[in-house]
Amino acid sequence: MARVVVDVMLKPEILDPQGQAIAGACSRLGFEGIEQVRQGKRFEVEVEGAVDEAKLADVRRLAETLLANTVIEEYSVRVED
Amino acid sequence: MARVVVDVMLKPEILDPQGQAIAGACSRLGFEGIEQVRQGKRFEVEVEGAVDEAKLADVRRLAETLLANTVIEEYSVRVED
Repeated sequence: MARVVVDVMLKPEILDPQGQAIAGACSRLGFEGIEQVRQGKRFEVEVEGAVDEAKLADVRRLAETLLANTVIEEYSVRVED
Repeated sequence: MARVVVDVMLKPEILDPQGQAIAGACSRLGFEGIEQVRQGKRFEVEVEGAVDEAKLADVRRLAETLLANTVIEEYSVRVED
């Protein structure tokens, strides 16, 4: 069994009010030097057997159709060591 | 400006109904060979200047107090290349 990680983040040009709220809380709570925070999602997908190119393509299709809203989000897929 | 990534996931012993719903949808949508999905959060924290040990300790404290609920979640902090 292998683990593939899919990270989904809002595209850079899309406003991220959750991240802004966290950044605001940081300065109120006394954390210095935090310039920006953006919040996204992380999916850990456990796939049967070894991960080959076909499996990775499947997970990319999964990310594209189910995990990310590609109008406003971008995703990256990688095999976790 | 450097980017520190904080990944927050439910602890392995905590049930993840969101992830289960995604895994169920995978098999209904015809994605084969997906055994388990777990969903978590990813935070991209932009910090001023270079990242040294003190900055990383700050971000760990931030993760511990603000980004993760350490009763049910675990987090990892890493500098993104």
